[in-house]
Amino acid sequence: MKKVCFFVILVCLNAASFLVAADPQTCPADLGGKCSDSDDWQGEFFPEIPQIKYEGPSSKNPLAYRWYNAEEEILGKKMKDWFRFSVAFWHTFRGTGGDPFGAATKYWPWEDGTNSVSMAKRRMRANFEFLKKLGVDWWCFHDRDIAPDGNTLEESNKNLDEVIELAKELQKGSKIRPLWGTAQLFLHPRYMHGGATSSEVGVYAYAAAQVKKAMEVTHYLGGENYVFWGGREGYQTLLNTDMERELDHMARFFEAAVTYKKKIGFNGTLLIEPKPQEPTKHQYDWDAATAANFLRKYGLINEFKLNIECNHATLSGHTCHHELETARINGLLGNIDANTGDAQTGWDTDQFLTDVGEATMVMMSVIKNGGIAPGGFNFDAKLRRESTDVEDLFIAHISGMDTVARGLRNAAKILEDGRLSELVGKRYSSWNSELGKQIEEGKADFEYLEKKAKEFGEPKVPSAKQELAEMIFQSAM
Amino acid sequence: MKKVCFFVILVCLNAASFLVAADPQTCPADLGGKCSDSDDWQGEFFPEIPQIKYEGPSSKNPLAYRWYNAEEEILGKKMKDWFRFSVAFWHTFRGTGGDPFGAATKYWPWEDGTNSVSMAKRRMRANFEFLKKLGVDWWCFHDRDIAPDGNTLEESNKNLDEVIELAKELQKGSKIRPLWGTAQLFLHPRYMHGGATSSEVGVYAYAAAQVKKAMEVTHYLGGENYVFWGGREGYQTLLNTDMERELDHMARFFEAAVTYKKKIGFNGTLLIEPKPQEPTKHQYDWDAATAANFLRKYGLINEFKLNIECNHATLSGHTCHHELETARINGLLGNIDANTGDAQTGWDTDQFLTDVGEATMVMMSVIKNGGIAPGGFNFDAKLRRESTDVEDLFIAHISGMDTVARGLRNAAKILEDGRLSELVGKRYSSWNSELGKQIEEGKADFEYLEKKAKEFGEPKVPSAKQELAEMIFQSAM
Amino acid sequence: MKKVCFFVILVCLNAASFLVAADPQTCPADLGGKCSDSDDWQGEFFPEIPQIKYEGPSSKNPLAYRWYNAEEEILGKKMKDWFRFSVAFWHTFRGTGGDPFGAATKYWPWEDGTNSVSMAKRRMRANFEFLKKLGVDWWCFHDRDIAPDGNTLEESNKNLDEVIELAKELQKGSKIRPLWGTAQLFLHPRYMHGGATSSEVGVYAYAAAQVKKAMEVTHYLGGENYVFWGGREGYQTLLNTDMERELDHMARFFEAAVTYKKKIGFNGTLLIEPKPQEPTKHQYDWDAATAANFLRKYGLINEFKLNIECNHATLSGHTCHHELETARINGLLGNIDANTGDAQTGWDTDQFLTDVGEATMVMMSVIKNGGIAPGGFNFDAKLRRESTDVEDLFIAHISGMDTVARGLRNAAKILEDGRLSELVGKRYSSWNSELGKQIEEGKADFEYLEKKAKEFGEPKVPSAKQELAEMIFQSAM
Amino acid sequence: MKKVCFFVILVCLNAASFLVAADPQTCPADLGGKCSDSDDWQGEFFPEIPQIKYEGPSSKNPLAYRWYNAEEEILGKKMKDWFRFSVAFWHTFRGTGGDPFGAATKYWPWEDGTNSVSMAKRRMRANFEFLKKLGVDWWCFHDRDIAPDGNTLEESNKNLDEVIELAKELQKGSKIRPLWGTAQLFLHPRYMHGGATSSEVGVYAYAAAQVKKAMEVTHYLGGENYVFWGGREGYQTLLNTDMERELDHMARFFEAAVTYKKKIGFNGTLLIEPKPQEPTKHQYDWDAATAANFLRKYGLINEFKLNIECNHATLSGHTCHHELETARINGLLGNIDANTGDAQTGWDTDQFLTDVGEATMVMMSVIKNGGIAPGGFNFDAKLRRESTDVEDLFIAHISGMDTVARGLRNAAKILEDGRLSELVGKRYSSWNSELGKQIEEGKADFEYLEKKAKEFGEPKVPSAKQELAEMIFQSAM
Repeated sequence: MKKVCFFVILVCLNAASFLVAADPQTCPADLGGKCSDSDDWQGEFFPEIPQIKYEGPSSKNPLAYRWYNAEEEILGKKMKDWFRFSVAFWHTFRGTGGDPFGAATKYWPWEDGTNSVSMAKRRMRANFEFLKKLGVDWWCFHDRDIAPDGNTLEESNKNLDEVIELAKELQKGSKIRPLWGTAQLFLHPRYMHGGATSSEVGVYAYAAAQVKKAMEVTHYLGGENYVFWGGREGYQTLLNTDMERELDHMARFFEAAVTYKKKIGFNGTLLIEPKPQEPTKHQYDWDAATAANFLRKYGLINEFKLNIECNHATLSGHTCHHELETARINGLLGNIDANTGDAQTGWDTDQFLTDVGEATMVMMSVIKNGGIAPGGFNFDAKLRRESTDVEDLFIAHISGMDTVARGLRNAAKILEDGRLSELVGKRYSSWNSELGKQIEEGKADFEYLEKKAKEFGEPKVPSAKQELAEMIFQSAM
Repeated sequence: MKKVCFFVILVCLNAASFLVAADPQTCPADLGGKCSDSDDWQGEFFPEIPQIKYEGPSSKNPLAYRWYNAEEEILGKKMKDWFRFSVAFWHTFRGTGGDPFGAATKYWPWEDGTNSVSMAKRRMRANFEFLKKLGVDWWCFHDRDIAPDGNTLEESNKNLDEVIELAKELQKGSKIRPLWGTAQLFLHPRYMHGGATSSEVGVYAYAAAQVKKAMEVTHYLGGENYVFWGGREGYQTLLNTDMERELDHMARFFEAAVTYKKKIGFNGTLLIEPKPQEPTKHQYDWDAATAANFLRKYGLINEFKLNIECNHATLSGHTCHHELETARINGLLGNIDANTGDAQTGWDTDQFLTDVGEATMVMMSVIKNGGIAPGGFNFDAKLRRESTDVEDLFIAHISGMDTVARGLRNAAKILEDGRLSELVGKRYSSWNSELGKQIEEGKADFEYLEKKAKEFGEPKVPSAKQELAEMIFQSAM
Repeated sequence: MKKVCFFVILVCLNAASFLVAADPQTCPADLGGKCSDSDDWQGEFFPEIPQIKYEGPSSKNPLAYRWYNAEEEILGKKMKDWFRFSVAFWHTFRGTGGDPFGAATKYWPWEDGTNSVSMAKRRMRANFEFLKKLGVDWWCFHDRDIAPDGNTLEESNKNLDEVIELAKELQKGSKIRPLWGTAQLFLHPRYMHGGATSSEVGVYAYAAAQVKKAMEVTHYLGGENYVFWGGREGYQTLLNTDMERELDHMARFFEAAVTYKKKIGFNGTLLIEPKPQEPTKHQYDWDAATAANFLRKYGLINEFKLNIECNHATLSGHTCHHELETARINGLLGNIDANTGDAQTGWDTDQFLTDVGEATMVMMSVIKNGGIAPGGFNFDAKLRRESTDVEDLFIAHISGMDTVARGLRNAAKILEDGRLSELVGKRYSSWNSELGKQIEEGKADFEYLEKKAKEFGEPKVPSAKQELAEMIFQSAM
Repeated sequence: MKKVCFFVILVCLNAASFLVAADPQTCPADLGGKCSDSDDWQGEFFPEIPQIKYEGPSSKNPLAYRWYNAEEEILGKKMKDWFRFSVAFWHTFRGTGGDPFGAATKYWPWEDGTNSVSMAKRRMRANFEFLKKLGVDWWCFHDRDIAPDGNTLEESNKNLDEVIELAKELQKGSKIRPLWGTAQLFLHPRYMHGGATSSEVGVYAYAAAQVKKAMEVTHYLGGENYVFWGGREGYQTLLNTDMERELDHMARFFEAAVTYKKKIGFNGTLLIEPKPQEPTKHQYDWDAATAANFLRKYGLINEFKLNIECNHATLSGHTCHHELETARINGLLGNIDANTGDAQTGWDTDQFLTDVGEATMVMMSVIKNGGIAPGGFNFDAKLRRESTDVEDLFIAHISGMDTVARGLRNAAKILEDGRLSELVGKRYSSWNSELGKQIEEGKADFEYLEKKAKEFGEPKVPSAKQELAEMIFQSAM
């Protein structure tokens, strides 16, 4: 019984908690499943939601796709293969609508108020129904959001195994599998100083054990990638932090992860997900370039790729397009967390992307990258706190999928139109000269260049035609 | 029993919750007080913390004041009267260390894991011991952080009354009283669309009932001010919002508050606390000027003052000093929430102010204002998530108090030195001319000014001497 | 001769200046017009640019409108009447492409390298050809960008008169006239401490004389509005600033402007253009709410409206839509400076708006406002530094005009569709109840509301449907 | 004569230029030195400024050091050797006070209004008097700010040689020499698309020739470092940019620079100066980590170090301390541009650092780095636009030098006190265990760590003591 109490403290918000007099047809948390001894749920989880179909741009049905047509070919590839859409379990099935100043607002009908294993299994069933109704083949998860923490690592692993078995069973006969899995190394207070970069060596060991298990179950379910988001790998102040030592520890941790991955025959891609800050003041994987520098410094550059999240990109002062291009140019573009932030707020809002212009630029990068597989588009996006209808979960995903689908259609239109690439090609045409080649081949030293500069006299410098480029771009919207 | 479950959902973070296998010497939440049927606590709450005393700048004792010397006179007033320090109950006694990505980290020894009325009373006793050991005479509270929500408004009020009675009793024989009280209209999901600006009329009524009660108990305890922080009075998107109608509703709400205040004979100041955003994308009381415009538009300018929070100031793009001066110039400087933010992050970090330069500028405004009474300096500041020792609560407050105390000492030094005010006086000296007076009295029309301009020829424009001003300012640090 | 030298210093960038060995078919600055004794220019200024026509969305001609069809009616009004487009003389004819780290990049063929009156007149002719080819009826100007400063106020006025006479003549027989005029009170070093808020009284007088004249010529040309942008009305540091006194001076200045406007029978609207900062650290007209507070405080609220610039809006932490709505709700929406900023940079980039979503929201506000006349849409936008072709000037304006034209078409579609306004209406429907009316009429005091709250019990709070609202909005794009 | 005119256009601000009727005792620009045929200047440049001396903290003399005492030893090293202060020629002698909205405000008595070689030489003499009066031994320069551009590269080089000869002569018999030199590849319109990353190959060659020469003269003058600040090496929009190709070009350019440096026997350090943006939307050397990634990717990591500028650090979302530590940890800390930005503005303000707390953190990094030689502290800082007295130049530098001197004194105090390093040491003490060592040596794989985690059970995680660390830190101020 006492353990239960502790649980309750643990989940309190930093604002005061309270009791509400609603009509809770739910069951106590972790009280041994007295009132809910199974994960059964009568009938569908989303009885009022039909299978979501493509109805074309003129449809006014909010529960239909207007631009995403899974089987339609664009630039020689089916739309579904361009995107490899994935639902983020944590936002869609564990998001409560709580924020730093507010308690949960969402009470989905299938929730019984507990964090029990049977509830976890019921949620997993809901997830699969959701994926099927949406027509999506991938899902992403943190270990602790699909199965509850136990009193010990062993118990936590046991809980996880039980839920994973169900997921395995539910996957059978379908194409559904994890796009990636990951370990939640940020929620539990033990990780308050970091996981791999904790000031406590015991926490490092614990984190390693947790990642080991998460990697195993991802592999077991046929997951195609494994992600590291270092939410607590950073600092709050340099005054109490040995940044160099922490970074060394992080490198050791990643090395061990690479070794273990190979040992168990997991061929999925390891992905680092950059974010500049929040929850820490400074997160070590600040942006794509920072993560790349880390990987190069420690000789890990060939073992990892990056998972670029659009909202993290803008928080770090870049456009999403810039981060994608930086990752691509460094050979590191591995996955996209397709969301967006609010241009006027300084925190992660994880909104579903609805800006078609931004989506078009994202798809221009993906096309240049030759696609995103074995990664995909994971909707690391959540309903607004005030969106509390079950159908809102569907509307949000449909809107997000349609937005990038429009982006793909527009990017293809721009490519086929050709005017934009022509403009760029023309802009750099002087580099196709003899001198351009010499420079690019590393054969032009300063003396030679000075000689050439004197020969040339003042160079002609034409207009960059930015407004024309923007006009062409916008015309395709 | 079923109600308990619901409570558990309600307090979950938006990240997944979980069970931890620590050794919790606590008691279940709201389980009828089975294990804790009283608010008794054996002995002191802070047995290892002595009465905090002034030991002077050379002391290395972290549990002593180095610059705050309560009874010492500065510029003809005792330090304690300049500051009127107040402890914020919510941060100090209800802060858990949770954040959007993390569960609670703080487990104070006196907490029993419940949100019961008896626990609330035990906390209130801890608060008074804390105040006394710190030597602080004021405290601030939200209704729902000192007493738990009940199943109904009536029950909530009853819970509140019970805790208030204890507080009243604890105040006896001391000078301790609330600097201000306020109603928590942001945590509960009912307020997700706002309180006074909710799209639901029933929520408006509920909010009014809650403010009515909070104002009554503030008055009852001898509170000297009453604060409105409109955490949810704003919007997430204009697409679904009727901003004009919501602002009208907010005005009606404030009018009713003024009426009620007068009716019950509460002479305390009503204060609006501006904040630009968070939790909402846009909060209606964005900054001091925005709040002032609202008050003027609706004829409320003489009924309210402002509570300026430094961290809110910087989030709105201003210095704290600017917001204080804007409030002062508009006749609205009523209280200071003495904290600070992080210059590199885009959310409210509510840190204890430790920047002496900033504190000095704050105090320059307070001195110009002739002091801050009947308001004061409320420490709307919290421990970092990773600060988990009981002594950290004291260290943080001591550090914050010492910082503004240094600010006061420096501001006094600058005033007494005289060079800075001389520099400013000289800068505007041309306005003491005949023409300057005519203009300031509204007697100089454009024709007259044009005539003068032609007579003068090109004006001489001297250096603004900013670097010298900064040098003088820094010399006093 | 010596005066010439001084001129050269004056225009130097803060970076080093230098001499370039191009082939400058131009004429010395202010050397008495030795090589250019007239403002004649043989033939057209833009011989390669045709009259810009509407060709519809499928056109690939960059010198044609795809969405702006001047005479087409939308929501019962011609497109040209919705927009009342205006060209900003300063950007289009005086913009050089210089930036804080770079010298001028633009050398338009009609420029002779001087800042002489004859050059000013030649530029004015180019302006009228530009307006006509674009099919735009309004233009905006600062006094000093259309005519050069002289050695004295009298000489400057004389220069201005000469150019104004030409403009008057060029306007004849056309509908072309100024949307607004304004005085440039920020470029000249005399204004470094401000114009109306300068620490030097002589500068205040000079500024008054300059505004007086600018208002007269605006009136003479049939201008419909007069704008105040207080680029230097603010501070760099509060340490050397008497903000209260400066604000009082600004009020006196505006009062005198109102008096003079009435005296000369100028019926145009006086407009304040808010901007948060840049060039000053803090500008007194920070945003719409701040300007409104100022106007209310000094009793000027009925004499002024606001000119909202989108880039200024985002620099102040708001969306453009928010600032427009704030102005509208305060009865102050008078004009729009139609541009946009860069979401990742912290300074005014004054780009041509190309985001159709943003343009749609802008037009939703304008429609709610019943149009923008007698104000209009002024393109306070400039070519990128690297855009150096004459045609870029046209492409940029066409792109900007087409963007807001798409915005209007989309806004109309959304209105006609009706789903979005239905969603909003439903959201606030509880306020149409008896209680809602009582509250809105100010008849519901706290006691009554508490009684109602108790009767109601826990209010039902439905979903805000933000994602659905966004989906509906995006569908119209 | 015609060339002169072109010069005038070139230096115009993007706002309109104008003529002023002051009493300019100056000489025309580049008119063949008719009125100024020598660089002679009668007597001192700063006749009213004495040699600046150390007078101690109690001095009220603005023209004296209060904390910087050049010969005093701190932590075993003379203060002057800790800092190796340098004056930035461009700000101090070419800064005009101009900004994007304003013309020049500064008219130093020794300026004759020209950009002639003789004026350049006069300025150089002023520079040496300034250095000597300040007691500073280093200076930094861009090629084009010490000598004017000519009509051809050859002519520009000749101009430069003439000024360099004078500098060489002025250096004689003193310890004065360049801390570093650099080439100005951003002001001239030819560089509008970049230097090494220009879309025009001819510009690349021109830039190479310019760097070649700048490196030669830096070497000739005994300069100890050479800096690359890529103000235009970046992009305005990705729509018209081939970022990958541009980065490859930049690498080729740096490789050629390394080769040339070795060829001419220049042993100085090559430094990259990161900046996130401004003037470009995105600059390729965004921050320390981005520059390090670039250097590693192209195999240049051992050939370069970084020049960290505090204002650039904060523009990129980091503290200056963070950037210094990132550079240090990557073995790249080579020089410091000691300035500061404004926490509320989004552009480079290049202010003299006056925040003692920030300076203390800077010095903590420098001490950890074992000093900064052969780099130093360059004051890449400028007077505010409104500071127009000659003495302001001295006051600003004295203030900046005193601030970092206080920083050094405080950092030494903190080190000697020992409490802060003790706090940090204790925090990481668990890593000194057997397991800690195994991990740090790369000997702990996931299986072993899991085994250990199971043995340990739940780890103990102590308080991070941030508030105590801040208190200790502030106590030393």
